Amino acid sequence: MPKPEILDPQGKAVAAALSRLGFGQFAGVRQGKRFELEVDGDVTDEVLAAAREAGEQVLSNPVIEDVVAVYADEQVPA
Amino acid sequence: MPKPEILDPQGKAVAAALSRLGFGQFAGVRQGKRFELEVDGDVTDEVLAAAREAGEQVLSNPVIEDVVAVYADEQVPA
Repeated sequence: MPKPEILDPQGKAVAAALSRLGFGQFAGVRQGKRFELEVDGDVTDEVLAAAREAGEQVLSNPVIEDVVAVYADEQVPA
Repeated sequence: MPKPEILDPQGKAVAAALSRLGFGQFAGVRQGKRFELEVDGDVTDEVLAAAREAGEQVLSNPVIEDVVAVYADEQVPA
């Protein structure tokens, strides 16, 4: 996700649109990238660590983005 | 996230790059959008339902995208 200190005009535009369309309960919106990394076999701690490392080294720009929410599918409601 | 049946050349390119850069444990990659919706107060079931509805009606293209993983921040490891 964009680092908190980074200006997010896209997020601001989406927040305004949500409010106009009747979703007034959201005070702010931030938009970023989401990756699903498929593995053969179990999602072990090592796999999660490798996913975080791939996120930090390859899938994001560390200058403006933070890697957040690295988790196995079953840890989160679908 | 892109629907499973939708061709995801971006995801394929990222998967190939990960493999070249030594992250061989990932069999596939899919890339989509992630939104953080900020609310004042608690994240109730009603708020999560509104977030899913906003995702389905405003934040995604229902023809090619599915809304997945609607959750409160504290439900997932940081």
